Amino acid sequence: MNTSVPVAILGPTGYTGLELLELLANHPRMHAAYLASARPEPIDITREFPRLCDRLDSTTPALTKPIDHDAIARACKLAFLCLPHDAAIAHTPPLLDRGVKVVDLSAAYRIKDPATYHSAYAHHHTDLNNLAHAIYGLPELNRAAIRSAMLVANPGCYPTAAALALAPFIRAGLIEPGTIVINAASGVSGAGREPKPHTTLVEAGDNFSTYALGTHRHEPEIEQTLASITPAGSGAPGVLFLPHLLPIERGILETITAVPSATAQSMDQQALTNVLSEAYRSEPFVVVRSDAPTLRDVQRTNRVHLSVKLLPAKGPRPSRLIIVAAIDNLTKGASGQALQNANLMLGLDEHLGLR
Amino acid sequence: MNTSVPVAILGPTGYTGLELLELLANHPRMHAAYLASARPEPIDITREFPRLCDRLDSTTPALTKPIDHDAIARACKLAFLCLPHDAAIAHTPPLLDRGVKVVDLSAAYRIKDPATYHSAYAHHHTDLNNLAHAIYGLPELNRAAIRSAMLVANPGCYPTAAALALAPFIRAGLIEPGTIVINAASGVSGAGREPKPHTTLVEAGDNFSTYALGTHRHEPEIEQTLASITPAGSGAPGVLFLPHLLPIERGILETITAVPSATAQSMDQQALTNVLSEAYRSEPFVVVRSDAPTLRDVQRTNRVHLSVKLLPAKGPRPSRLIIVAAIDNLTKGASGQALQNANLMLGLDEHLGLR
Amino acid sequence: MNTSVPVAILGPTGYTGLELLELLANHPRMHAAYLASARPEPIDITREFPRLCDRLDSTTPALTKPIDHDAIARACKLAFLCLPHDAAIAHTPPLLDRGVKVVDLSAAYRIKDPATYHSAYAHHHTDLNNLAHAIYGLPELNRAAIRSAMLVANPGCYPTAAALALAPFIRAGLIEPGTIVINAASGVSGAGREPKPHTTLVEAGDNFSTYALGTHRHEPEIEQTLASITPAGSGAPGVLFLPHLLPIERGILETITAVPSATAQSMDQQALTNVLSEAYRSEPFVVVRSDAPTLRDVQRTNRVHLSVKLLPAKGPRPSRLIIVAAIDNLTKGASGQALQNANLMLGLDEHLGLR
Amino acid sequence: MNTSVPVAILGPTGYTGLELLELLANHPRMHAAYLASARPEPIDITREFPRLCDRLDSTTPALTKPIDHDAIARACKLAFLCLPHDAAIAHTPPLLDRGVKVVDLSAAYRIKDPATYHSAYAHHHTDLNNLAHAIYGLPELNRAAIRSAMLVANPGCYPTAAALALAPFIRAGLIEPGTIVINAASGVSGAGREPKPHTTLVEAGDNFSTYALGTHRHEPEIEQTLASITPAGSGAPGVLFLPHLLPIERGILETITAVPSATAQSMDQQALTNVLSEAYRSEPFVVVRSDAPTLRDVQRTNRVHLSVKLLPAKGPRPSRLIIVAAIDNLTKGASGQALQNANLMLGLDEHLGLR
Repeated sequence: MNTSVPVAILGPTGYTGLELLELLANHPRMHAAYLASARPEPIDITREFPRLCDRLDSTTPALTKPIDHDAIARACKLAFLCLPHDAAIAHTPPLLDRGVKVVDLSAAYRIKDPATYHSAYAHHHTDLNNLAHAIYGLPELNRAAIRSAMLVANPGCYPTAAALALAPFIRAGLIEPGTIVINAASGVSGAGREPKPHTTLVEAGDNFSTYALGTHRHEPEIEQTLASITPAGSGAPGVLFLPHLLPIERGILETITAVPSATAQSMDQQALTNVLSEAYRSEPFVVVRSDAPTLRDVQRTNRVHLSVKLLPAKGPRPSRLIIVAAIDNLTKGASGQALQNANLMLGLDEHLGLR
Repeated sequence: MNTSVPVAILGPTGYTGLELLELLANHPRMHAAYLASARPEPIDITREFPRLCDRLDSTTPALTKPIDHDAIARACKLAFLCLPHDAAIAHTPPLLDRGVKVVDLSAAYRIKDPATYHSAYAHHHTDLNNLAHAIYGLPELNRAAIRSAMLVANPGCYPTAAALALAPFIRAGLIEPGTIVINAASGVSGAGREPKPHTTLVEAGDNFSTYALGTHRHEPEIEQTLASITPAGSGAPGVLFLPHLLPIERGILETITAVPSATAQSMDQQALTNVLSEAYRSEPFVVVRSDAPTLRDVQRTNRVHLSVKLLPAKGPRPSRLIIVAAIDNLTKGASGQALQNANLMLGLDEHLGLR
Repeated sequence: MNTSVPVAILGPTGYTGLELLELLANHPRMHAAYLASARPEPIDITREFPRLCDRLDSTTPALTKPIDHDAIARACKLAFLCLPHDAAIAHTPPLLDRGVKVVDLSAAYRIKDPATYHSAYAHHHTDLNNLAHAIYGLPELNRAAIRSAMLVANPGCYPTAAALALAPFIRAGLIEPGTIVINAASGVSGAGREPKPHTTLVEAGDNFSTYALGTHRHEPEIEQTLASITPAGSGAPGVLFLPHLLPIERGILETITAVPSATAQSMDQQALTNVLSEAYRSEPFVVVRSDAPTLRDVQRTNRVHLSVKLLPAKGPRPSRLIIVAAIDNLTKGASGQALQNANLMLGLDEHLGLR
Repeated sequence: MNTSVPVAILGPTGYTGLELLELLANHPRMHAAYLASARPEPIDITREFPRLCDRLDSTTPALTKPIDHDAIARACKLAFLCLPHDAAIAHTPPLLDRGVKVVDLSAAYRIKDPATYHSAYAHHHTDLNNLAHAIYGLPELNRAAIRSAMLVANPGCYPTAAALALAPFIRAGLIEPGTIVINAASGVSGAGREPKPHTTLVEAGDNFSTYALGTHRHEPEIEQTLASITPAGSGAPGVLFLPHLLPIERGILETITAVPSATAQSMDQQALTNVLSEAYRSEPFVVVRSDAPTLRDVQRTNRVHLSVKLLPAKGPRPSRLIIVAAIDNLTKGASGQALQNANLMLGLDEHLGLR
């Protein structure tokens, strides 16, 4: 018999919480059994998100409850943490202690080096033990470790797209260190549900802008991932990360340029596309294409679409690889990937509840 | 007495025509006296564009007429050509022959080298004489020549932003040749008024995509401009141009990265900002800022907003200049700049009718 | 064993076709086994819609084939017709003759009276026999007949929302005839995939407009449905239908006003809300709310959200019912409802593959 | 010699303030000489609104100052109040006492009846004397009184469109009392610059919703205006006002239905259009059209576009007038009209600085 696994969502009233609830509503083997909010009063989740009316699992509670670690442990096998990073660090240890597996959607357990974490998040990490054991939840790179993990640090949205776009080339030594420029653009939902002066429709709509040029917190996360897969003997590749804000709700497009290494210079367009398609041959959520993807191709799916184009040298300009990656920042960039990780951690089919 | 100069618009039913008509409606010294269309039947211009109702100059005709060079020459001192490039090449010589000054908004007279033109536009140029004499209409680089020109080639939208962003650094030898990457994004009005499968609201709205990566016609135009101002002894800088389509009507944002030259390495952030502010100290339409501009800052104005940021080297990554430029593609990127050029060619104050 | 029913889509390259393919990709008991296009050359469906890459059922063909009635009948039990109404009339009889059930998404079989059909669609109906037997596919009104139907006329998008909003009040005699005003607004996808001058992002984006005021083809369809459920002895209610075009892809919101009948005058707000909630108590896709729905609440679901508000008389103004209905025009307003109908016609659970 | 009149803006950091500053930047005879903010620290206005960089009059101060009535009176002849209604009531008397003319953009002086004001705004009016003398600033209805007014209450955005659409028909007794339904939709800028949960891009974008059905504060304002022009012996018309929120920045479209009176029943389409065009024959900012206007036709202009359509009776449905009105809510609906009023109050050409 196919039983359904009860899970908890801590922080279900933000956009990653809403996305998780929608995904779980269509998951055949997992259901939200506990909705926990830091706000003391119970929140009626379908008043908060009327689009969930009549769509939640019959066993999903209508109201949020306090974050009670014992109650969560009694009711659930796994908890999704959709909380700020400091709250994630407060609640992860007691949940793990009670045997509850954790998928943390915050940045709390992503950066392995505490000094780098402190420099990026202006916050001293206080759970170094779990930080050391947390698994970075990018299934395409870390599937085996995720299956047996108790704590998975769900990757950032930009880093998910960047790592999947670059990993095959880095592993094969095809990119000249120091030359990667990641031009990235994200929908406004990436800034969270709390209204801010720059996220109103009047300010963000009909607009396009850069932000945090060279100072974004996702830059060290991307560098850590790429460094971890750099072949021995090669230098870490480094990246220049340039985020932009798009006047839309959802989606991340990254247009990544890099100078090909000497090895790559001898490869043609088809061989470079093959680097991607061979790397992701059996991946359920990676699509490698010959033409460049757009956001409409991936919105509201858990897919990443990838393409690579080789531009030859021209005058003073060296040849360049142009890799384009598209994901939905709330799905593959957050809650969809969290569910993919949870499927793996719970021994379920990886693609369940995802499209 | 302040008389008003009569001008013609050839091709007033596209978006650059509409923009010109709106600008001329508020110009104190210039008015549209002849509207010429390639379509044989007269077109009622306020039926075509109801937002112009009651707003046109009282002497502006309600209906388009055929493109009759003699009639245009009798009625007008200058003609704006808002036509495809082949039509522009057909109509420019007879207008010039009749003493009518021409501001050509097409690409016909922008690229000086006929072979490069042919390669970019798949079209053999048949008016090489005028091509040789045409002045590239970027007032901030070419003001004196524009004042006395009979034929001005109005720059492309992307090249306007790119040239203004890069010129001061190229002139001062501050950029390492071969390292410029121009990440650019434009509103959909840049694709013209004719409906196309990729410009419908359903396809282009809520979307973001690359196009023509490394093959866009504006790349050689940018390279020509930068080469023309490169100090003697330096190599041409070359560019990699990566255009994107934004889900909005108007505006171009370019996020340009380049490796600073040895000279620039010794400069600090303030010195680099000064390079821009000194270059454009007395320019009426250039704003140099310490923070990065957004599209809302420039839409429906003739302004370009510019900023530069120096990112230090970090690990394998060399230091980089990040120059951000924002314009409205239909105003400073097309019709506004055309009017700025016309003001100069007619001896009027350069800023008249522009904001 | 749960087998899967093979179905055909005729006209899969429009937006209703895409929506059906996405829905079928997640349907556990139905799959697209034949994709038929009027275009002679085979069309690669994932090139046409890259977001379907790797997401279609493994048995769904990659390429479209010609509309071959025998082949379709051999391969499929039911066909979805996503074709213009004249093509629907051409292909429905041969499919029915071969035993293939038909869900027609065009308007061909919706209007029972041939004269009204001719007046609305400027087209003489040539299949009067099937027209007489076609079942109007609004499950909430016609479920039993749909279960045994061979031919279902899938309702129009606006009429779906209007009928579901008004039916309970009409049946209960709560609305004064002649007073209904349906103010309706639809996303641009309702105009189809073919680019048109008024559907480009520049024209339709950042805009809002009326169209076909009092002449829209959906007005007689709404009137036919309401007349069919008017209690004996009452006059047909009549409607004034005022459609608008929204600057978004998807969704229909209808704000319907009507003067309450004498019976309704004695009812209070709660009693009127109960009229809706009792009528739809066991409906899987109807949500009755105390607050007014918005489009975000229903987009990409098969749901209709409904609310009613009673405004008391004020000075010269009589009291009024304000009924608000929200649906997704491509889902409950087209392909989702078509799938709901197909589930019923094939004896499957009505909600399969829908959310 | 054409001198320029110095004016003050109280509250320049909201959207009506920004719009006024942009309009004044292009006004040949009026300039902002004092920018007063309730916030104690000076605000750099071009940091607040970078699109104003280098575009303000050379005499416009860069920084806001406190609201100092004496200083304002020394520097300015007229003040625009872009403040909340309670602040407007606090500052209007001292400015008038010092001889400064006031155009109040808040609702403070619009509603003549203090009880109605209290009921709509939940606020007891404390300046009944000025309330009694304030002139309602709709130039098309009140031009003469505005010219000699010291205090003008600038109309609300929705009421401006509604009054201009309905006034000619009400005056001529062409509408059956109690039958007017105003379906209205506004861009999000109408909700002000302060971020709110429902005005973020994620919530308001790609959405459409009703709000304040039958309870909006603008309903009594519309009713007051219509009552004031109702012919003696006729009853006040009353309105049902149904506002909606559009997923765009700017613009109001009102689709108004009403049952024609017996007099109107004998008129044909052309005669009804003539009612509008004769009423507004010499108005500089009213355009009467035979087709229905859209928002793009009026955005960023001070125009109202109007059309009327007569729909004949059909079955149980009486005949109906459909009047469509379009304005820009920030221009004709707020700051543009405020400037139009100021032009009149200062004896300047009414259209100066407006388009």
